[in-house]
Amino acid sequence: VEVGMRTLKLSRTYSCGGMEFSSLPLYDTSGPWSDPSFVIDPEKGLPPIRDTWSFWEGKSVVSTTATSSARRARKALDGGGITQMYFARNGVITPEMEYVAIRENQNLEQWISGFSRGSKKHIPVTPEFVRQEIAAGRAIIPANINHPELEPMIIGRNFRVKINSNIGNSALGSSIVEEVEKAVWSCRWGADTVMDLSTGANIHQTRQWILRNSPVPIGTVPIYQALEKVGGKAEDLTWEIYRDTLIEQAEQGVDYFTIHAGILREHLPFAEKRLTGIVSRGGSIMAKWCKANKQENFLFTRFEEICRILQAYDIAVSLGDALRPGSILDANDEAQFGELKVLGELTKVAWQFDVQVMIEGPGHVPLNMIEENMQKQLEYCHEAPFYTLGPLVTDIAAGYDHINSAIGGTLIASFGCSMLCYVTPKEHLGLPDRNDVREGVIAHKVAAHAADLAKGSPVAWLRDELMSRARYAFAWEDQFNLSLDPEKTRESHRSSMAASGRTDKNP
Amino acid sequence: VEVGMRTLKLSRTYSCGGMEFSSLPLYDTSGPWSDPSFVIDPEKGLPPIRDTWSFWEGKSVVSTTATSSARRARKALDGGGITQMYFARNGVITPEMEYVAIRENQNLEQWISGFSRGSKKHIPVTPEFVRQEIAAGRAIIPANINHPELEPMIIGRNFRVKINSNIGNSALGSSIVEEVEKAVWSCRWGADTVMDLSTGANIHQTRQWILRNSPVPIGTVPIYQALEKVGGKAEDLTWEIYRDTLIEQAEQGVDYFTIHAGILREHLPFAEKRLTGIVSRGGSIMAKWCKANKQENFLFTRFEEICRILQAYDIAVSLGDALRPGSILDANDEAQFGELKVLGELTKVAWQFDVQVMIEGPGHVPLNMIEENMQKQLEYCHEAPFYTLGPLVTDIAAGYDHINSAIGGTLIASFGCSMLCYVTPKEHLGLPDRNDVREGVIAHKVAAHAADLAKGSPVAWLRDELMSRARYAFAWEDQFNLSLDPEKTRESHRSSMAASGRTDKNP
Repeated sequence: VEVGMRTLKLSRTYSCGGMEFSSLPLYDTSGPWSDPSFVIDPEKGLPPIRDTWSFWEGKSVVSTTATSSARRARKALDGGGITQMYFARNGVITPEMEYVAIRENQNLEQWISGFSRGSKKHIPVTPEFVRQEIAAGRAIIPANINHPELEPMIIGRNFRVKINSNIGNSALGSSIVEEVEKAVWSCRWGADTVMDLSTGANIHQTRQWILRNSPVPIGTVPIYQALEKVGGKAEDLTWEIYRDTLIEQAEQGVDYFTIHAGILREHLPFAEKRLTGIVSRGGSIMAKWCKANKQENFLFTRFEEICRILQAYDIAVSLGDALRPGSILDANDEAQFGELKVLGELTKVAWQFDVQVMIEGPGHVPLNMIEENMQKQLEYCHEAPFYTLGPLVTDIAAGYDHINSAIGGTLIASFGCSMLCYVTPKEHLGLPDRNDVREGVIAHKVAAHAADLAKGSPVAWLRDELMSRARYAFAWEDQFNLSLDPEKTRESHRSSMAASGRTDKNP
Repeated sequence: VEVGMRTLKLSRTYSCGGMEFSSLPLYDTSGPWSDPSFVIDPEKGLPPIRDTWSFWEGKSVVSTTATSSARRARKALDGGGITQMYFARNGVITPEMEYVAIRENQNLEQWISGFSRGSKKHIPVTPEFVRQEIAAGRAIIPANINHPELEPMIIGRNFRVKINSNIGNSALGSSIVEEVEKAVWSCRWGADTVMDLSTGANIHQTRQWILRNSPVPIGTVPIYQALEKVGGKAEDLTWEIYRDTLIEQAEQGVDYFTIHAGILREHLPFAEKRLTGIVSRGGSIMAKWCKANKQENFLFTRFEEICRILQAYDIAVSLGDALRPGSILDANDEAQFGELKVLGELTKVAWQFDVQVMIEGPGHVPLNMIEENMQKQLEYCHEAPFYTLGPLVTDIAAGYDHINSAIGGTLIASFGCSMLCYVTPKEHLGLPDRNDVREGVIAHKVAAHAADLAKGSPVAWLRDELMSRARYAFAWEDQFNLSLDPEKTRESHRSSMAASGRTDKNP
């Protein structure tokens, strides 16, 4: 397979660990959008690169389910396995596995093999290693067979730490074109996946445009759309409406679903004792449904049926933490860890269907209580990848919650969390605009990269070494280009130099 | 003594742990500047509150050293002790000790006594406890007797984590009025101390204005001014020029001096093996001097004489880490830890003269190597307070280094670092402007507060609890006022609401 990457040309040759670098291949999430030879036309969408791999022929059929999707959706042959986990367990290396192996190495196999910090020996990622990690449930490649525009990526703690950004329209918030632009915009700054949390009108069409234009996996919370279909009344939700929503989104090509199947009626009394109750939107919808209908959460009782749907399109399930703490006082409580145990049980169920699983995590957690979250998640959830929102290490950082989240995120990722959900400066205050998205993405790129360094990633260390060599040599252009936001660093330096003429003011 | 505080009125009464709060006293670093009844006149300076305590009468005399300072400087009686450490060791509680005890408790003694998390029992800070910590060298109150405008504060790991901001004019960078404004500006956002790193013209007068207008301790790096006096040629520096500079600044009222006395000739070969050599400005000045003059660092050889000067004014010494790593690859190396051991020896020397000491720390350190820094500092430096720049956990976050620094800073402060030196978004790129100062200060307030929470500070936990109660109750004004930057949160919410009408977009 051909793997998208970006090669950064350096202004000179740097010598690192006996190797010479006059350029650096970068992990690139922006897909064709940053390719100068690509003509942007959101109405046409991106080229369907995965279709050219022809891997699905004979394994899938055109779906007969009627949907409003312009594209003809495919699904697995009846009784046929089609998920990455299915193939992995059967010893098959898919093009997606090969793709992510190449991508993780960034063409730096030689550097990786020669890298040493302490006694740890490093080896490049192989497609076979990817297969093993997926087979074991320790990593996932979210890649719906109906999202052929996707450039596959892997989420797991033995790979590069990833970040997710959220977008979402609402009646007044933003238009479809704006949302597509926002999705592309966050990938440009380094978002590895995007969650479309749209509510309100045009939800189907918005998602369609985003998917057709997205080189990264798209995740959704299907209960949001199901709720729209019942006029916003949680108590009126039914399994049938939810199921049809899953299929609708599955056939559009959504790569992973957040499903709040772990919140049970037995947890509700614990949540009621909390300072901030249930702050997860999906969680409060399901809590309301359970109470009104005096029944157990249908996402839990119907979980096997859900898995059969996910299995047919290879959609990963992101098991939502409906009971994530909304304040540090509620962190690590019975409600939270009670639900986490259920998520662990559901993980085993999903794996019976070869459905790829990740687990969502908190939330608001003081720094000293973060490690316990990671330990318990590994223990309860059988090493399925962990995907956290933050954690935010204080409740009072509104306006600066992207920093707050980056602090907790760095720590938990260094302990093994696989993906960080970004938080923007508008968290707790309002809807993010373009600049908030950029600030949020970069703050979490800092966190993810810092965690990669802490974990000893050879490719992460190389970039820092090149940056420091460029800095020591006053090679400004290389410094700008090696930074996480070349536009900002270039402009920042230019304007400051124009004003003063000095560069260093530290004692 | 009367202690400056700010009382935040809440829009309703919140019940926390059986107590009712309709207001919250806040720790306030802005001094009279945020007092609406105070008329601002930078030419006159702040009222000299410490003079009214009349503690120095009979213990100090008017200095006979000629300086250009407008104020008549005082110094200790010959042979008489005057430092906080001297009094602490002799069982005397000074007004400053009483002041900081009251200040740390924020009038919340009852809440503190009733607070429990886990099994830890909390007691309010007493003046006697402050005395003991200072006597043991575990905490310092930087308070030159010639800075009567100061509102005393304490730096030590059994107290609230503090932050420092840097300001500094340069020929083209900014004017004196701008620097005074910048100093006041950073205190307004929460800076606990300010370092004046000015170089170039008007250095004496700038400092004079800053001191007369500063309610927080002012620190300097005297070697910068000494270097100006020899035309910028490091090799021409002499002990006499440096000594006179110390006295000049001492009599103006500088509260602490960064002194790079720990870098020795034996360390230089280690520094030369590094990726980024010596990045500390003071460090490279002294390295250059040692090499050119083929002599040992005079700040080291004359350290006892330096202590005699500091002792006479009660100036704290901040032992500079000339060999702090400038890249993560250089972290925790022989150069860095070799110097740290020398700083530990110098700490003992300073304590012989009852001079208060803190130790400066790195720098660029990957997350997994931060804890070792704290452990070694405690071990080598006999528990003297640690004061770090970051650490920055990656080299590639230019433009976002305030976030980078807040990440490492939170972690090291949670391990016991007492004060964090702020880093602004302009780090590695240029000189910070007003907005950079604000962003840098708040990012490190987030870090310091998050560390206080991790350490179980009852007053820190109260503020978060109130914030979360206000959030749960949609009490927007209280949320704004309880946040670290009420102006930003208020404006952010207002503009976002105007655009969309929604508040919560998390899955």
